[in-house]
Amino acid sequence: RRGKMAKSTQLIDNEVFRAYATYTAIVLLKMMLMSLITAYFRITRKAFVNPEDTASFGKGESAKKFLRTDPDVERVRRGHLNDLENIVPFVGIGLLYALSGPELSTALLHFRIFTGARIFHTFAYLIPLPQPGRGLSWAVGYSVTFSMAYKVLKTAWLL
Amino acid sequence: RRGKMAKSTQLIDNEVFRAYATYTAIVLLKMMLMSLITAYFRITRKAFVNPEDTASFGKGESAKKFLRTDPDVERVRRGHLNDLENIVPFVGIGLLYALSGPELSTALLHFRIFTGARIFHTFAYLIPLPQPGRGLSWAVGYSVTFSMAYKVLKTAWLL
Amino acid sequence: RRGKMAKSTQLIDNEVFRAYATYTAIVLLKMMLMSLITAYFRITRKAFVNPEDTASFGKGESAKKFLRTDPDVERVRRGHLNDLENIVPFVGIGLLYALSGPELSTALLHFRIFTGARIFHTFAYLIPLPQPGRGLSWAVGYSVTFSMAYKVLKTAWLL
Repeated sequence: RRGKMAKSTQLIDNEVFRAYATYTAIVLLKMMLMSLITAYFRITRKAFVNPEDTASFGKGESAKKFLRTDPDVERVRRGHLNDLENIVPFVGIGLLYALSGPELSTALLHFRIFTGARIFHTFAYLIPLPQPGRGLSWAVGYSVTFSMAYKVLKTAWLL
Repeated sequence: RRGKMAKSTQLIDNEVFRAYATYTAIVLLKMMLMSLITAYFRITRKAFVNPEDTASFGKGESAKKFLRTDPDVERVRRGHLNDLENIVPFVGIGLLYALSGPELSTALLHFRIFTGARIFHTFAYLIPLPQPGRGLSWAVGYSVTFSMAYKVLKTAWLL
Repeated sequence: RRGKMAKSTQLIDNEVFRAYATYTAIVLLKMMLMSLITAYFRITRKAFVNPEDTASFGKGESAKKFLRTDPDVERVRRGHLNDLENIVPFVGIGLLYALSGPELSTALLHFRIFTGARIFHTFAYLIPLPQPGRGLSWAVGYSVTFSMAYKVLKTAWLL
């Protein structure tokens, strides 16, 4: 058993895979942070969706007025959904890319640019920065994932 | 070829990886169940979004009245989105965690608590239970993923 | 180090894993395409959510009228969310399935049917085709993922 276990944890000894693990953990933690920011705005703006969430504000009509949408809450939620739409492909394709034997320096370049672009995208969405700031950071992350997908398909292609 | 195949399927022989596979399949199936519950409520509450989905109820105005939102449908959909936001990080970070060589007992503890918390979260959302039931179960799952991310970053760190 | 790296990229030498990598890259790229289609409809229909996105159309009231929802935009967004709900489980469970040692022909059957069903689902949603076209293609993809989850749980089960 010990031998098998040692073998199967070898992935984490591979430098490209370690880089993938580091950046994937970072972008997923960044995405998880959106939940906390949503909660913060829901509480400070007193804007909820579920009746049971407003029960502590009183009963009946007095609590009902907190069942409303707030522009700041909706903005964070859009940022969160955009993260899901873009970070999910990065995590999936990035794993295959890390296993397709790229050079460490090339892999690091991909992971770093993607992670930087998504962190910038979050600031651009939440501040908000004037366009095309957010649009460009989205396109940069998108292109990185696309480039990794190209490498994966070139290496693994078996249809 | 046979040799290679045997080698590359070794991951599934690793006990921590087997535990990861088991719990990941369970939480992803649980998440997929939300689609069926949404469909159930859409059909029983007759509340649809797409005009083509109401065609079987007749034509013109008689079908149009079923293009509406229903509180039960929206509640399931919020639960489904919350699953996506929380189960995606678990699956991604959990894989890296399983490959970072944790003790089986520690890994099982993480996977079991996360899975239990998300199943409870679904019940808390759909019944619904009074707060802070749903909030706490969300926080428990969130903390487990955070704890696994910490282990991944400590083991793999390569920026 | 070289030896380790060679070993850990061996996954990509496994034919089932190569097939998984190919189809996963294809469905994730297909999902990413939904972002471009959303952007296309937002621009051609002039329907935006964020005030900063309409700044180039002028100031004040003249730009404000483009902050609106458009049926075509919303349709693509629903298709995109449906992709997330279904492609995420496929990618996660599919990886475990590919590592559970299935026959190449069985694995290819699963991956091909899922990918075909999701591509059909996108056309059915966007054209739109009359029901039950979209519903059936959804059910086919769902069943494939379910079948893979069954194999994973049968092979890996460790609770």
